[in-house]
Amino acid sequence: MIRVAVDAMGGDRAPQAEVAGASDALATLPDDFLIQLVGRTQVIEAELAKHPKIDRSRLEVHEAADVIGMGEKPLAAVRRKPESSIVRGLTLQKAGGSDAFVSAGNTGAVLAGSTLLLGLHHGVDRATVAALFPTGGAPTLVLDGGANVDCSARELVGFAYLGSVYMRDLMGRPDPVVGLLNIGEEEEKGGAVVREVHQLLKQAPRINYAGNIEGRDILPGPWQRVPVDVVVCDGFVGNIVLKFYEAAGRLFVGLLKDSVPDIFERPAPAISRLVRLLDYSEYGGAPLLGIRGVSIICHGSSSANAIKNAIRVAVQASRSGLSQHIGAEFAQREAAAQS
Amino acid sequence: MIRVAVDAMGGDRAPQAEVAGASDALATLPDDFLIQLVGRTQVIEAELAKHPKIDRSRLEVHEAADVIGMGEKPLAAVRRKPESSIVRGLTLQKAGGSDAFVSAGNTGAVLAGSTLLLGLHHGVDRATVAALFPTGGAPTLVLDGGANVDCSARELVGFAYLGSVYMRDLMGRPDPVVGLLNIGEEEEKGGAVVREVHQLLKQAPRINYAGNIEGRDILPGPWQRVPVDVVVCDGFVGNIVLKFYEAAGRLFVGLLKDSVPDIFERPAPAISRLVRLLDYSEYGGAPLLGIRGVSIICHGSSSANAIKNAIRVAVQASRSGLSQHIGAEFAQREAAAQS
Repeated sequence: MIRVAVDAMGGDRAPQAEVAGASDALATLPDDFLIQLVGRTQVIEAELAKHPKIDRSRLEVHEAADVIGMGEKPLAAVRRKPESSIVRGLTLQKAGGSDAFVSAGNTGAVLAGSTLLLGLHHGVDRATVAALFPTGGAPTLVLDGGANVDCSARELVGFAYLGSVYMRDLMGRPDPVVGLLNIGEEEEKGGAVVREVHQLLKQAPRINYAGNIEGRDILPGPWQRVPVDVVVCDGFVGNIVLKFYEAAGRLFVGLLKDSVPDIFERPAPAISRLVRLLDYSEYGGAPLLGIRGVSIICHGSSSANAIKNAIRVAVQASRSGLSQHIGAEFAQREAAAQS
Repeated sequence: MIRVAVDAMGGDRAPQAEVAGASDALATLPDDFLIQLVGRTQVIEAELAKHPKIDRSRLEVHEAADVIGMGEKPLAAVRRKPESSIVRGLTLQKAGGSDAFVSAGNTGAVLAGSTLLLGLHHGVDRATVAALFPTGGAPTLVLDGGANVDCSARELVGFAYLGSVYMRDLMGRPDPVVGLLNIGEEEEKGGAVVREVHQLLKQAPRINYAGNIEGRDILPGPWQRVPVDVVVCDGFVGNIVLKFYEAAGRLFVGLLKDSVPDIFERPAPAISRLVRLLDYSEYGGAPLLGIRGVSIICHGSSSANAIKNAIRVAVQASRSGLSQHIGAEFAQREAAAQS
């Protein structure tokens, strides 16, 4: 049975959202899995008392006395707080006692902790946060989503491989199309690093590279030069676009409400579908790709629904063998480079 | 009378959109101005024949035998094609025969031509394209909008001044709030250049600096940490977010149509207002800030409406003395730096 450790202390709404999300996941997700809530036992048990119907036979509580705050410096916090919920949850996975970790806590600390404790696959230079962008149809994967501000050309090429394996394994796209985020399609566009990545990706084996793409090509529609599944960019750009999109979605819904005041009185399915189309919580957190294991990073303000869906992604990633496939992909790359 | 030169040969829909936009502008805008269509006289006259009611007493045609293509290298094209509509239009302004230039042609060529022919104000290191983001209410100014890929810290600080003068002069905001686009509000966020800009802006006189902002803070709403008028970023990030926003707006309208098929049959004002709220063409092109003169850059795919509104912005910028105010602002900065 797949065991998913959930950081019960991370996130702005912890432990309420985490415990409610775990409860929803156990009640509604079809898979056979077990949840390990990691955090202060007393706090967790007090919250669990509000969910008397939760299936305790598929739920464990793992004590972690400490918490890493949202504002703490990631690496220092991970080193200084071995009893924190993040370090405890990841250590459990490292020791073989868990299969996946889900946290809405300090993103940098989850990244640093996952990299340090679980390690990177051979040939992976840097782990990346893979952010799915809702589009109303098939989502687009953007990576890096904010973990890595400055990226080398080699790291960005690595993201193309990581994203391709992810889309194959978890989104069922056999030959995902990769685009490099730039300000024009021409060869000479962008800074030195982006231009180098473009040249490297053109020759990269097993990457279905569509070339440079522009901001508009991230979202599917007639304005796209080419449809893409995977968008490669550094974490500075990725994070800004990701957060901008969240605000734009909320702005649109607000403007719609102002323009057509009775819109939300209409038959519920149509409008609730529209709002859900743009709802990140349906995707349930961004997997950290490149590490030896499964670690899912959730938005700090994650709702119970977002946590539930992150648990779903964690189960899928574990069951599909995503991490193993990434390891195999990079082993093949390394072998080819040396031959 | 303010004289606005319009590049009749630039843009994907030239000369139709340009001539129709000029005709609309003359018929509907309240100001007293004159339009100078620059391009191949024969082509322009053939197009003008379709607009028999146009006010020819306020319209001139200026011959330019050559055209700079969208794919040409900007600087080389400007140097090699003195008879192009872009170079002719800007030369007219330099010689005192025109007050403003509007073009939907090769953006890089308009930027290079404006910088070379009109020159920069003393103390301005680089001209910037100022992009207004529609928000349904007061628009947000994002700069650079794509002209400058790699920017130094000093250039980015300059953009904060350029944007502040623009928002005071043209948007009536007496004390515009400036935000620095980053991936978190903390001091240590971002790469080396962004961190340096943050320190410089904190001490910058006459800048109402709100600190680092995130992607979501570009758009007004309850998700903002602080409302901002001016967003400073390099042209790589600015261009990607700008184009992404265009696609997001179109995607949203499409999803709305799919979810609520009869939405566009509803009383027109509500929905057309919503669509217009997100319509860039209402803003009419991005002014190039920092040059000694007025130059407005339009989207390559500009409609007649976009051209009309760009002419409106050109008239406003000329009448308000935007360029002179920018010159005075930078003279004050230079004087303060030397004292």
